[in-house]
Amino acid sequence: MLEELKQKVYEANMLLPKYGLITFTWGNVSGIDREQGLFVIKPSGVEYDKLQVKDMVVVDLKGQVVEGMLNPSSDTQTHLKLYQSFPEIGGVVHTHSHWATIFAQAGHDVQAYGTTQADYFCGAVPCTRDMTEIEIENEYEYNTGEVIVERFVDLNPNHMPGVLVKNHGPFTWGKDPLLAVHNAVVLEEIAMMAFHTEIITGNERAMPKFLLEKHFMRKHGPNAYYGQK
Amino acid sequence: MLEELKQKVYEANMLLPKYGLITFTWGNVSGIDREQGLFVIKPSGVEYDKLQVKDMVVVDLKGQVVEGMLNPSSDTQTHLKLYQSFPEIGGVVHTHSHWATIFAQAGHDVQAYGTTQADYFCGAVPCTRDMTEIEIENEYEYNTGEVIVERFVDLNPNHMPGVLVKNHGPFTWGKDPLLAVHNAVVLEEIAMMAFHTEIITGNERAMPKFLLEKHFMRKHGPNAYYGQK
Amino acid sequence: MLEELKQKVYEANMLLPKYGLITFTWGNVSGIDREQGLFVIKPSGVEYDKLQVKDMVVVDLKGQVVEGMLNPSSDTQTHLKLYQSFPEIGGVVHTHSHWATIFAQAGHDVQAYGTTQADYFCGAVPCTRDMTEIEIENEYEYNTGEVIVERFVDLNPNHMPGVLVKNHGPFTWGKDPLLAVHNAVVLEEIAMMAFHTEIITGNERAMPKFLLEKHFMRKHGPNAYYGQK
Amino acid sequence: MLEELKQKVYEANMLLPKYGLITFTWGNVSGIDREQGLFVIKPSGVEYDKLQVKDMVVVDLKGQVVEGMLNPSSDTQTHLKLYQSFPEIGGVVHTHSHWATIFAQAGHDVQAYGTTQADYFCGAVPCTRDMTEIEIENEYEYNTGEVIVERFVDLNPNHMPGVLVKNHGPFTWGKDPLLAVHNAVVLEEIAMMAFHTEIITGNERAMPKFLLEKHFMRKHGPNAYYGQK
Repeated sequence: MLEELKQKVYEANMLLPKYGLITFTWGNVSGIDREQGLFVIKPSGVEYDKLQVKDMVVVDLKGQVVEGMLNPSSDTQTHLKLYQSFPEIGGVVHTHSHWATIFAQAGHDVQAYGTTQADYFCGAVPCTRDMTEIEIENEYEYNTGEVIVERFVDLNPNHMPGVLVKNHGPFTWGKDPLLAVHNAVVLEEIAMMAFHTEIITGNERAMPKFLLEKHFMRKHGPNAYYGQK
Repeated sequence: MLEELKQKVYEANMLLPKYGLITFTWGNVSGIDREQGLFVIKPSGVEYDKLQVKDMVVVDLKGQVVEGMLNPSSDTQTHLKLYQSFPEIGGVVHTHSHWATIFAQAGHDVQAYGTTQADYFCGAVPCTRDMTEIEIENEYEYNTGEVIVERFVDLNPNHMPGVLVKNHGPFTWGKDPLLAVHNAVVLEEIAMMAFHTEIITGNERAMPKFLLEKHFMRKHGPNAYYGQK
Repeated sequence: MLEELKQKVYEANMLLPKYGLITFTWGNVSGIDREQGLFVIKPSGVEYDKLQVKDMVVVDLKGQVVEGMLNPSSDTQTHLKLYQSFPEIGGVVHTHSHWATIFAQAGHDVQAYGTTQADYFCGAVPCTRDMTEIEIENEYEYNTGEVIVERFVDLNPNHMPGVLVKNHGPFTWGKDPLLAVHNAVVLEEIAMMAFHTEIITGNERAMPKFLLEKHFMRKHGPNAYYGQK
Repeated sequence: MLEELKQKVYEANMLLPKYGLITFTWGNVSGIDREQGLFVIKPSGVEYDKLQVKDMVVVDLKGQVVEGMLNPSSDTQTHLKLYQSFPEIGGVVHTHSHWATIFAQAGHDVQAYGTTQADYFCGAVPCTRDMTEIEIENEYEYNTGEVIVERFVDLNPNHMPGVLVKNHGPFTWGKDPLLAVHNAVVLEEIAMMAFHTEIITGNERAMPKFLLEKHFMRKHGPNAYYGQK
C-alpha cells in the first residue's frame, strides 16, 4: 500500500538528521497521496538510526490509522489539519531545530532581512498566537493545526511554506516531502541569520519589498529564470 | 563484580564525546545497583579514547572504593550524595557542556520557554546557591551534592532530572545511566535555545504552565501517549 | 575550450561546500582568461554533489554564453561587471555564508578589529547602498555589479578583495578562483569575530591603522616576509 | 638534530587543525630543548595538510636559524622572547582561534567565571596593552613578546599559561608543546563560555576567589588529587 510514497517519506525523514535539524526523535515528515486521500507519516518516538521504510504509518483524512504496526507521530493531527486546509501541499515537516525554535519560543516572526529568505519565503515567517488552556487540554495536536491555519487567514501557504508554533517549534511544507524538508533547512538558516541581524542592528527593519518580491519571483514566479529548465 | 553495570556505565560514558558534551576528561557518568548498594563510576582524569570497561571503579554508599585499580572520578562524592538523597535515580552524569555551563556560570536558572524543555524537565532547571568558603575548603565534592539536594527541597528530582551547580556546571540523572546521559544532551540543547530566547525577547517570561504540564505529562504521566507502548 | 580553466573553476566551486560556505546551491565561483576575454562559471541551480567539470559554462565579456549545455549562474552578470571594472582580478566568488550575510543584511561594514582581517583586507570590508526599485526591476544582476563598483570609487579592489551586497550577501575576488575562495573563507571568519567583538565592546572602534597596515604589508607589500619565497 | 623534539613539535602542530583551532596556516607551535638552548618551530605559511616532520625549523636563543630549509614562523621572535623570559615553559602555541581572538580584538581579559577556567588558569586570562607605532614598525614580533612579558610583571606564567595579544590573538604555553596545545584548547572553550556568561548577566562579576583557588590547587597544587598518580 503506497509503497512508493512510504519510500519517499522514509527518505525525507532520514534527511532531518543529515541536515542537523533534529536531536533524538524530535521531528517527523509526512507525505500525502491526494487521489487516495491518505498520508504516510513517521511512527512516534522511533529513533532515526533504527527507522525502516516498513515502519511508516498510513493515515486517512479523518486521522484514522489505515495501515502500520506502530503508533503514528504524536503530531499526526497537526499534519492532518494542514493537509485539510492547504490543498496544494504534498508534504509536511516538523522539527525542533535550534534557531527556528528560538523564534517560536520568543513568539517572534522571522522578519525578512535578505535574499536568502526571499528566495523561498515571500515575507516574514509568521508565529502563531498563544493557545488557550481549553485548546491545549482537548485535541491539543489538532488545535495546533487550527492556530496555524488561523494565522494564515491573510497568507498564501504556497508563498509562505512554513510557520512557527509559539513556545513549540517550526512546521514547514512543500509540494512533496522532499521540498518540505528543503524548506525546513532554509528556515533554520534564515532564522539563524535573522537573529544576529536583529541583534547587531538593534531593530527589525525588513528588506525593501521590491527586492523581496524580485527574488521570490525570479525563482517561483511565472517568468522564473533561476536554475535549469 | 557488577560486570553488566560496568559495561553500561562504560557505554554511557562513551556517549559524552559522541554527543559533543565534553572536552578532554571534563565529565563522568555513574550507575547504581540499588540492591547491592554499590555504584560504578568513571576513573578520574582518564582520556575517553583510552577508557576501557575494566577501568570502571566500584564504590559503596559510604564512598569507599570496593573494586578498581584506578582512583574514581574526583566528583564521586557528589554522585554519592545524589544517590543517597534521590532514591529513585539509577544514573548520574556530570559535564562542562557549553550552554549549561554558561547558565551555571551566570547563576541563572534555565527558564522553560518551550515544549522541548517541557518534554523532559517539568519547569525551570534550577541553579544552586554560592557555596561558602567552609563548604569549599572541606569535603568540597560531598558538599556540592549537599547544595544540590538543598535546592531540591521543593522540587521532585523525578520531574526535574538535572541541576546547575553555580560557577561550575550541570549534573543530570535518570532511571539508568543512559537516560541520565539523554537528559544531559537535552539540557545542553534547551540551555542553548533558552539563552537566545532571552536575548531576543529581553525578558524571562516562561511558557504557560498548562502547556508545560501538557507536554511533560503526555510523555511521562500516567496516561502518556508519546512513543510506542 | 579552456579545459584547464574549467577544471580550476570546478575545483574552486567544490571548495565552497568543503569550507561550509554554502547550503544547497547558494553560491558560485568563476574564473577568467584575460587573453581570450572569456570567463568560466558554475551553471545555475545545479547541486554541488552532482556538479561535473563539463557542466561549467563559458561566457564572453558581453555576457553571452559561448559554450555549455546549461544556463550559467543567475549571478553571471554581476561577475561580468566585476571582471569589466576590476582588471587585475582573475576569479570571483559569491556565497550566502552565515556571518558575512548577517553583516550584509544589517547593511553594516565589517570593521577591522584584528590582524586576522588585516592579513587579507586592508581596512573595513564595505557594504553597498540600497538598490533602487528601478535598478532591481531591470538588469538586476548587472546593476548589483554596478553598485559594488560604485562603492569602490575610493577603494583599491586589490587591497580590499571583497564586498557585502546589502540585504543579499558577500562577493569576494582574487588573482585566481582559488584565491577568491580563500578570501571568501577569511571573510566568513572575520565577520564572525567582528560580530562578537562589537557585541562585547558595545562599540565599533577599529584597530590602530599602523597595526592594520603592518600586517597587510608584511604579507602583500613589496617587502613581504610572511611565508616562503 | 633534535629529532625527538621535532617529532613532538610536529605532532603538537597537527593537533591545531584536529581541535578546530586554526584556519589555513593561522597558527604555530614550538618546543624548546633548554639544555641545548635551541627551539623547534613550524615553518612560515606552510599548509597543515602538507606539513612534514622534516620541515620543522631549529632556532637558537638569539633567534638565528640553526637548521632547516624553510623560513621559520613569522611569529618566531615572539616565541623566542617568551622562552627567554619564562624559564620554566617548554612549549608555546599561537592561534587565531575564534573566541580567544574575539576577546583579544575587544582588548578584554577573559574573566574567571567557572571551574572550567579555574582548573587550568588561576585567574582572569590577561590581555596586553596597545602597542605603539614604534613598537610595531621595528622588531614588531619581538616587541609582541615584550608586551606580553610586561603584562606578566605581577603574574606567574606557571599559574597563568596564556595571554591575549590586543587586536591579534592568543598565545598559550606549558611544560611541553602538548600541554601548551592543551591550554590553547581550554582557552578557546573558556573564552566561548565567558563571552556568553557576560552577555546574559550583563556584568563581569568573577567567581569567588576561594572556589577558583580550590580548583586550581586540586589539579596543580602540592596536594593535588585530580587524576591518577
